[in-house]
Amino acid sequence: MSSDAVVVAGVGMTHFGKFPERGLKSLSTEAVLEALADVGLEPRDVQLAVVGNAVAGLITGQECIRGQVVLRECGIGGVPIFNVENACASASSAFHLAWQQVAAGQVDVALALGVEKLTHPDKAVSFAAFGAAVDVELLAQVKEALRAPKADVGTRREPGGEGKSSMFMEVYAAIVRAHMERYGTTREQMAKVAVKNHANGALNPRAQYREVVDLDEVLASREIAYPLTLLMCSPIGDGAAAAVVVSQKYARTRGIRGPKVAASVVVSGNLPDSTDEMSETRAARRAYEVAGLGPEDIDVAEVHDATAPAEILAYEDLGFCARGEGGRLVDEGITELGGRLPVNTSGGLSAKGHPVGATGLAQICEITWQLRGECGPRQVEGARVGLTQNGGGFLGNDAAAQAVHVLVA
Amino acid sequence: MSSDAVVVAGVGMTHFGKFPERGLKSLSTEAVLEALADVGLEPRDVQLAVVGNAVAGLITGQECIRGQVVLRECGIGGVPIFNVENACASASSAFHLAWQQVAAGQVDVALALGVEKLTHPDKAVSFAAFGAAVDVELLAQVKEALRAPKADVGTRREPGGEGKSSMFMEVYAAIVRAHMERYGTTREQMAKVAVKNHANGALNPRAQYREVVDLDEVLASREIAYPLTLLMCSPIGDGAAAAVVVSQKYARTRGIRGPKVAASVVVSGNLPDSTDEMSETRAARRAYEVAGLGPEDIDVAEVHDATAPAEILAYEDLGFCARGEGGRLVDEGITELGGRLPVNTSGGLSAKGHPVGATGLAQICEITWQLRGECGPRQVEGARVGLTQNGGGFLGNDAAAQAVHVLVA
Repeated sequence: MSSDAVVVAGVGMTHFGKFPERGLKSLSTEAVLEALADVGLEPRDVQLAVVGNAVAGLITGQECIRGQVVLRECGIGGVPIFNVENACASASSAFHLAWQQVAAGQVDVALALGVEKLTHPDKAVSFAAFGAAVDVELLAQVKEALRAPKADVGTRREPGGEGKSSMFMEVYAAIVRAHMERYGTTREQMAKVAVKNHANGALNPRAQYREVVDLDEVLASREIAYPLTLLMCSPIGDGAAAAVVVSQKYARTRGIRGPKVAASVVVSGNLPDSTDEMSETRAARRAYEVAGLGPEDIDVAEVHDATAPAEILAYEDLGFCARGEGGRLVDEGITELGGRLPVNTSGGLSAKGHPVGATGLAQICEITWQLRGECGPRQVEGARVGLTQNGGGFLGNDAAAQAVHVLVA
Repeated sequence: MSSDAVVVAGVGMTHFGKFPERGLKSLSTEAVLEALADVGLEPRDVQLAVVGNAVAGLITGQECIRGQVVLRECGIGGVPIFNVENACASASSAFHLAWQQVAAGQVDVALALGVEKLTHPDKAVSFAAFGAAVDVELLAQVKEALRAPKADVGTRREPGGEGKSSMFMEVYAAIVRAHMERYGTTREQMAKVAVKNHANGALNPRAQYREVVDLDEVLASREIAYPLTLLMCSPIGDGAAAAVVVSQKYARTRGIRGPKVAASVVVSGNLPDSTDEMSETRAARRAYEVAGLGPEDIDVAEVHDATAPAEILAYEDLGFCARGEGGRLVDEGITELGGRLPVNTSGGLSAKGHPVGATGLAQICEITWQLRGECGPRQVEGARVGLTQNGGGFLGNDAAAQAVHVLVA
C-alpha cells in the first residue's frame, strides 16, 4: 500500500477514575473537545469518526449507535460514523480504522474516540462486563462443567481488565506460573513492575491511582490468584480518550505538527490448531516491518499491563529482550523512568486505569505527549519513537485482538 | 482517492426466519462457508474480516468479540477482525469497511459478515432489542415524561425493524401521515408495496414469509399505528449474510468474476440544527457522484422497507422519482417485477425478513445474484446496475446511519 503518512494532530483524554455521576456523553465530550482544541479544529471539521467501546450495552443500556449518540453531544453528525468493538483493544481498533481512512485518502480529518463506563451502582454488573470478552456460550458450558464459584470481590479497589472473572484470572495465572517455572521469573519482579507503574502514575495528573506503593505493599496485597495480587491488577474505572488524525497534506496546509503513524497493526488471536506465534508477537513483528524499525529503535512504550506479569511477557513478545529475559529487564531498571526504554510512563493500566474501550487511545495520548516532549516530570528525554501494545479479549489461549502502533516524532 | 475497483467475488446467506434452535455460530458458519464456496476459496484465504451485528449482547449475552467467536467456528482466525455496529445498517457498514480495506490495497481478500439472532424465548427481549437503536438516555427521559404504554404484541407475527417500540412506530407513522397530507400518498399505495414485496418473497426460497397476500389482507391486518398495519411491517427473525470482496488484480489472477463496487457510501444522520438534506438523500447523491451514474441508470434496487411507506419515501430520496411522486411509481407498477425498475425483488425486509445486523449484506447478496442473472423466477432481465439502501437507528428525526451501495455487473 502506497499510503501517505498520517499525522496524530491532536489528542485528549479525561482523568481516569470512578465517576458515578458522569455518563458516556460527558466523558466523550471532554476527550473529543480537548483533542480538537489541541489542534485548533472545530467539531464541524471532523470528516469521519470511529468510536470504540466494549460494554456500554451492559453498563448503560446503550446497545446500538453508541458513537452517534455521544458524538451528537459534541456537535459531530452527518459524517460517516462507525462503532467498533474489540474488547480491551476497541480504542486501538478505532484508531486503526480512522488512520486507515486517512491513509487511503478517503478523508483528510478523522476522529478516533474510545470511551467506557465500567462503574455501576451494582458492582456485580461491572464484574459481569469484564466476563463479556470471551466466548460466552463456551463459558456457560465450562462453568456448568466446573460449577465455578463466583468471583471474589475486593474492597479497597477491584481488579479490572479482561478475563477478570475468577476463572479467567486462574487461566491467566496459570500462564504466568508456567513462565515462572520455565524462565525463573519471580513474584518480586512482577511486584517491581507494579511499583514502577504506580510511581509513574503518581506523576500523571490523569491517573486513577496516584499513590506510590512499595514492594512489600504489592506482595502483601490480597491474592487474586497466585502469583497475582490485587496491586498487580488494573482497576475498574471510567474514562474517554480521543485522537484527531489528519493527512500529511492537510497538516502541511494548516501548519499542523505532530507524530506520524509509522505502523498501525491489528490482528486476531490464533486458531486452536495454529502453529503460528501468538498474536502479540505477530502484531509486533508486522508493525516493525511496516515501520522499517526494530525494537532497538523504540524510546518509550505503553503496553497492556492488565496485570503486572503481562508487562513482563510484553517485553519479550515485543522484542525488547529475548524470551525469558523479561524479569531481568525489570531488575536492571531498563523500563523505569531514566532507564534505556521506559515503559508505561503514564502509569499503565494498573495505575493510570483501564476503562477498557478507552485504553488504546489513552496509550496513543501518552505516546503523543511523550514525542512532543510535554510529559513534565515523567518525560522521557529525547523520545523520538514510541510504541503502543493493546490486547483485547480471550479465545482459547490467545487474545481475541491485538494492536500495535508505532509513532515517530 | 484513486482506489482500484473491488469485486464482489462470492456471497452467501442463510434462510431468514425464526430458528429458536440455532445460534450465531451456526448461522454465521452457513453464510460464510457459502460465500467462500461461491468463489472457490477456503477460510484460510480470508485476509481480513469485518463483522456486523447489532443486538447479540441483548439476545445472546455475547457482548464483546462477537466476530472472533463466530469466525473461529468457521476456521477463520489470526487475521485482522473488526466488530462493527450501526444498528440496522451494521452489515452495510461491515461491507463498506471490508471494501475500503481492499480498495486501499491493505488486503486482497476481505470478508464481510452480518449476523443477527432476534428470536428469544421471551418475546419482550426481542422487542427490547429493537428499542436499543436510539439514544436510550433520551428515551428514558421521554418515556418518563409521557408515561408511555408498553408496546402491543401481535400473535401471527410481530413487526420488527428499528424503532418498533410503540413510541417510535408512532413517530414514524407521524412522518408517513405528513407525507400523505402533503402529497396525497394513500394507504392503498402503501399496501400495494406490501403486496408486491410479499409476491416477490414468495419467489425467494430464502424469504421468511413466502405467502402471497392481497390488498384487502394488508389493509385489514392489525393496525400498528395509523396508517401502518402489521403486514406493512418487517417481522422479527434470525439470519446471516456474507460477502467476499477481492481486489481486481486478485480476481484477474484467479479468474474470478463478479459485480464491481461502483460506490460504497455510509453517512450518519443530521445534527438537530442542520439545514442539510436527510441522510438517505445525502448518501444517495454521494453514491451517484462516486459511481458516475444516476438514478436513471439503476436496473434493480434493494431498499430498507422496514415499513411499506419507507419504501415509497426511499423512491423519492434515491431519486427514482420526484419528491411526492413515490405513490405514483407504485400505482404505475414501475417497481414491480417486470416494471422499469424492480425494487426489493428479494421480498425486502417485510417479506424476506429483517434480522437487523444481517440485512445490509442480504441486500448485497440479492443484487449480486441479480447482476449474475441467477434469480430464476424473480430475475430482472438484463440487470447491469444495482443499488442497495440500508438505514439504521433513529436520532432526532433522521436515521443514525445510512448506507448506499452501487454495484455494476
